[in-house]
Amino acid sequence: MVAEQSRLARKRIGFVPTMGFLHEGHLSLLDLSRQNSDLTVMSIFVNPTQFAPNEDFDAYPRDFVQDETLAKERGCDILFYPNEHEIYSDPYRTYVSVKQITELMCGASRPVYFRGVTTIVAKLFNIVKPHFAVFGQKDAQQCFVIKQMVRDLNFDIEIMIGPIIREEDGLAMSSRNIYLSASERKDALILNQFLNRARELIESGERGAVMIKSTLEKMIESVSSAKIDYIEIVETTQFKPVAILHGEILIAIAVWIGKTRLIDNLMITL
Amino acid sequence: MVAEQSRLARKRIGFVPTMGFLHEGHLSLLDLSRQNSDLTVMSIFVNPTQFAPNEDFDAYPRDFVQDETLAKERGCDILFYPNEHEIYSDPYRTYVSVKQITELMCGASRPVYFRGVTTIVAKLFNIVKPHFAVFGQKDAQQCFVIKQMVRDLNFDIEIMIGPIIREEDGLAMSSRNIYLSASERKDALILNQFLNRARELIESGERGAVMIKSTLEKMIESVSSAKIDYIEIVETTQFKPVAILHGEILIAIAVWIGKTRLIDNLMITL
Repeated sequence: MVAEQSRLARKRIGFVPTMGFLHEGHLSLLDLSRQNSDLTVMSIFVNPTQFAPNEDFDAYPRDFVQDETLAKERGCDILFYPNEHEIYSDPYRTYVSVKQITELMCGASRPVYFRGVTTIVAKLFNIVKPHFAVFGQKDAQQCFVIKQMVRDLNFDIEIMIGPIIREEDGLAMSSRNIYLSASERKDALILNQFLNRARELIESGERGAVMIKSTLEKMIESVSSAKIDYIEIVETTQFKPVAILHGEILIAIAVWIGKTRLIDNLMITL
Repeated sequence: MVAEQSRLARKRIGFVPTMGFLHEGHLSLLDLSRQNSDLTVMSIFVNPTQFAPNEDFDAYPRDFVQDETLAKERGCDILFYPNEHEIYSDPYRTYVSVKQITELMCGASRPVYFRGVTTIVAKLFNIVKPHFAVFGQKDAQQCFVIKQMVRDLNFDIEIMIGPIIREEDGLAMSSRNIYLSASERKDALILNQFLNRARELIESGERGAVMIKSTLEKMIESVSSAKIDYIEIVETTQFKPVAILHGEILIAIAVWIGKTRLIDNLMITL
């Protein structure tokens, strides 16, 4: 009702969906929304359908009191934090799935992940009725999947992407960084170092995906606590791995640092 | 844009999605929409994703000129008849699926059917942005599936159901009736006779699903051109077959009359 009334009052609604435990990455998306809207809505919902049974749904960090303070300080107008039963009322039976571009990278490692993401985002879009929604480039594949869903299902919603926000030493901000021990925190820098090295290789003229991947694999294998989940280089219009880099390229990595899975990425246009 | 402007002008939008080749069944849904809206939109789109390769997508009857005349005469304000490439633009990758209640009856006979229906209806809802949409009880299972999708995905859209409209001799109106030869047209009356007999049995106190089904199977088997696809008796809140009839009951049948598959149903509350 608030959503419909706000639209009828010709307010432009910006929406920032999150799983909470807010950091500067999320808050930068609030800034983007506020700059482009009359009303900014942020949702906080740790979405069970995007976690597999062996994943960290229960352990996922939550601190609603701190989140509320941070969001309000940063100018969020409406904070929406539904409970699980409001969102998935029994019997729940409907899922939104995007094919193909969800079957590699994070989708290969986490089979139910994207179906959960697209389902909850479709639901939140229908509840919040935003004119635009803001997602972070940190979850690059998710951004492409959401854009595909919006286009395919004719959602009248613009998707804005905010840049990756990093700690001073280069680690991409993530709610999951809190899982890292002090030594793992240092080892985690390898993700950003890896992407910087990839950029150097490309800027020096390298265009072979196999060459770039093998150089970088060695780099990550040199860190004892690090285990590669995937390194992928895709051309983004088809969202398929490429042998020779051309067009808009996404270099995406997922690395286990001990028991914590971290992701990072680089987009570059050649 | 028309949809958004109409909403901002506080017009109540009613929506009647169809596959065209309009008959009195469709037109009665237009009446329902007009009685409850300021603006009635009808879509005509023979949706390829709800037909399996072996089904009648190419043969499905189409007559846009006649449809346009009938719809306008009956007070349709906007007729939306997109082409296939507008609706499924390449690369198309997103599907909406409802689980469980799509796995029996028409969903068992037609495995891709409901995924196609829910996907196109979700798309049309986002294009037309109606306040309510009207479906016919003739496609009873579809009505339950759409209601489940609307509830699960939080569409802010009311679903209205119009009653089954029949020819004078009792045959439920269907665009597919045109496939029937003269003798098949007579044989097709068995569907309505079957449902009338089921009602009589229930009104006389019969509550056993097996007894009702076996009586009716014999009735249909007595018609040489008729072959049962399914006879199902479900309790509608769980949408599961019942042994003892209770609560709101849907008796649904699909029967092949020669090469034409016809459906009909009866809802009754005990």
